[in-house]
Amino acid sequence: MTITETPVAGKARADGPDLGRATHLSCRECAATVELGPHYACMECFGPLEVAYNYGTVTRERIESGPKSIWRYRDLLPVPENVASIPNTEPGFTPLLRADNLGRELGLKALWVKNDAANPTHSFKDRVVAVALAAARELGFTVLACPSTGNLANAVAAAAARAGIRSFVFIPSDLEQQKVITSAVYGTTLVAVEGNYDDVNRLASELAGQHEDWAFVNVNVRPYYAEGSKTLGYETAEQLGWRLPQQVVIPVASGAQLVKVDKAFHELVKLGLVEGEQPAIFGAQATGCSPVSTAFREGHDVVRPVRPDTIAKSLAIGNPADGPYVLDVSRRTGGAVADVSDDEVVEGIRLLARTEGIFAETAGGVTVAVLAKLLREGKLDPDAETVIFNTGEGLKTLDAVAPVVGPAGTIAPTTEAFHTLVPEA
Amino acid sequence: MTITETPVAGKARADGPDLGRATHLSCRECAATVELGPHYACMECFGPLEVAYNYGTVTRERIESGPKSIWRYRDLLPVPENVASIPNTEPGFTPLLRADNLGRELGLKALWVKNDAANPTHSFKDRVVAVALAAARELGFTVLACPSTGNLANAVAAAAARAGIRSFVFIPSDLEQQKVITSAVYGTTLVAVEGNYDDVNRLASELAGQHEDWAFVNVNVRPYYAEGSKTLGYETAEQLGWRLPQQVVIPVASGAQLVKVDKAFHELVKLGLVEGEQPAIFGAQATGCSPVSTAFREGHDVVRPVRPDTIAKSLAIGNPADGPYVLDVSRRTGGAVADVSDDEVVEGIRLLARTEGIFAETAGGVTVAVLAKLLREGKLDPDAETVIFNTGEGLKTLDAVAPVVGPAGTIAPTTEAFHTLVPEA
Repeated sequence: MTITETPVAGKARADGPDLGRATHLSCRECAATVELGPHYACMECFGPLEVAYNYGTVTRERIESGPKSIWRYRDLLPVPENVASIPNTEPGFTPLLRADNLGRELGLKALWVKNDAANPTHSFKDRVVAVALAAARELGFTVLACPSTGNLANAVAAAAARAGIRSFVFIPSDLEQQKVITSAVYGTTLVAVEGNYDDVNRLASELAGQHEDWAFVNVNVRPYYAEGSKTLGYETAEQLGWRLPQQVVIPVASGAQLVKVDKAFHELVKLGLVEGEQPAIFGAQATGCSPVSTAFREGHDVVRPVRPDTIAKSLAIGNPADGPYVLDVSRRTGGAVADVSDDEVVEGIRLLARTEGIFAETAGGVTVAVLAKLLREGKLDPDAETVIFNTGEGLKTLDAVAPVVGPAGTIAPTTEAFHTLVPEA
Repeated sequence: MTITETPVAGKARADGPDLGRATHLSCRECAATVELGPHYACMECFGPLEVAYNYGTVTRERIESGPKSIWRYRDLLPVPENVASIPNTEPGFTPLLRADNLGRELGLKALWVKNDAANPTHSFKDRVVAVALAAARELGFTVLACPSTGNLANAVAAAAARAGIRSFVFIPSDLEQQKVITSAVYGTTLVAVEGNYDDVNRLASELAGQHEDWAFVNVNVRPYYAEGSKTLGYETAEQLGWRLPQQVVIPVASGAQLVKVDKAFHELVKLGLVEGEQPAIFGAQATGCSPVSTAFREGHDVVRPVRPDTIAKSLAIGNPADGPYVLDVSRRTGGAVADVSDDEVVEGIRLLARTEGIFAETAGGVTVAVLAKLLREGKLDPDAETVIFNTGEGLKTLDAVAPVVGPAGTIAPTTEAFHTLVPEA
């Protein structure tokens, strides 16, 4: 082996992928160890694989001097040291907004909203896709792909465009025109598939087997992809002034986000970046797709799959891969998992918009409504500092609120007509 | 007068409004001086009023230690020192993204996109509304209002919700359902007015005369409101590492944004925060509403009003208040004003999305298309460092691209069907 002429940070490419401080993959079920590579299921027990690290020293100063994006936490992600300098959508470091109006309305003393609608394609998916792309490049993949029904499709198409690589996005053929446009505009090869999301997903898995240079972000590079969600936990703590909140409410689709945020909080404590107690972690689902909430309520350890029927389509995963781990986390931390009706979801969207000027997609409505419900039921402590995650943008799910919001009225263009419509003005 | 018990930063409220380092209003036409107050037209000549300041010392260090929003520049705005601590949407400090892919495609050496779609309601209007609200509060207004056809309505409704004050938003009754929902959801009193935007605007002016506690952001507090656009110029310079670019392309509706960005660059030089030459400033219009571009081309100093007919609705102001000043700035700096057809606007949107993963609204398409046109015509220097402003979000103007983007095809859920559709994959 000759010495490479271009110096690279961390491990030289000739030694294998440069995934920063990541050392190996580890099975969550049987703890078997697998070398870093395009693996996503344990060869011993088929359990999910998790990225493991040798972090060494990570300081607040080093993080704070980094870019205003998820890459400030690059030492804690499976990405190369120079990741921020390679064209990417630069997601993350989204606002953490104090929500006193909403807190007052719900009787909650100290409430914050982590608003991921501020990401480049306006959902948290930009985080996970950016990490998946960075890792996929190191693992030798040359094409980005995914099966999706919305937010993920937008994020993959945009990330691939900015990185200048080819992408394929697979969607159910009956998807709303709106979601089709917002992916197709980025110049991805968008393929409409006859069938439901399960059919699309199955096709994606088959194609992943045939195309060894295609990274399906949520299939064959999933262990790396999922690590991106940790950044929501890191940012929350840093933006609170390097403190952990006492309670967190997180929407549950596959459940990966909630599990990874718990992992992030543990890492921060272990690395000495924050002190104190682990927060109580609460999961939020829509009743029309609430397999984890049902299992929590019934005291089960396994999650029975359901057929989704809810307006919260971005949470509509009937067989959530991380469901059992969500149950573990919420029980271990003193949290809970709860669900709310579609009407409550719409009310949750309106409540957050009216009180804080934040227009969330249906998933955000689920989170706000579950927050309100858990407070009513006494399961959340009204005196404890609480953070809720808004993971997406209301502009993408206008249909949910269209039937219930509109003008106060239509008038002739005169002040008299106005004062007749609004006599108290 | 007794001493107030609550100490406040800057001037005491009992002495009048605390508008930071702003000292008075000054007429742009006759230079008459007016005291700070709810004035918007010169009492001598009816010319527009401009906020004047006594800046004193402003350092890079002070700015950099401020919040990650427009409030880091509070010393340069007509707002109180403690403005960031009063609930607001926290707009600004949006990404400045290096656009090498687009630059390469257009033959431009160094190109950046300032992406204001990252603002809270996804347009630059969040900046101007936040400044208007902060000033209006100091001037004694208790209600926020505006006539609007879209982005401004969203921004006013959201800002008022978060500030916990009442708002009234007036829109033409034939507005798209989509824009109605995105304002109404924030709980504003939304009033649909029979007629076109001019009718709505006239009604707003009449109501402003009747309700002395209502701040119509773009009418009776316009001098303060317009100052918010300066932050686009400040951020661009700071994010370039306290440097000015050589060329800037800015969309032109009323023209205020372009004029204020020029003002911002001058202030930065005067305050010693940056060195060097003023950038050449270029204005971008859609041909269907191009009164300023027409005047520029024909060498006129006055702008003849037109009746707008373009898909770029957020730029469709047929009688732009700042039109003559845009002509001044572009001529003085060695810039130009140009216009492009609606087809070119759509191509501009697609080009930016495909090359950089940024989905702009029609105004952004106008800017990209004008950039390309001015390069083709040799009016922009391909070797000069250039910044373009994307002022809004593609999700709000989906109809513009809907006819021309979509799936590559619809297939059965089999790998064979996929390979038939995409044989090269």
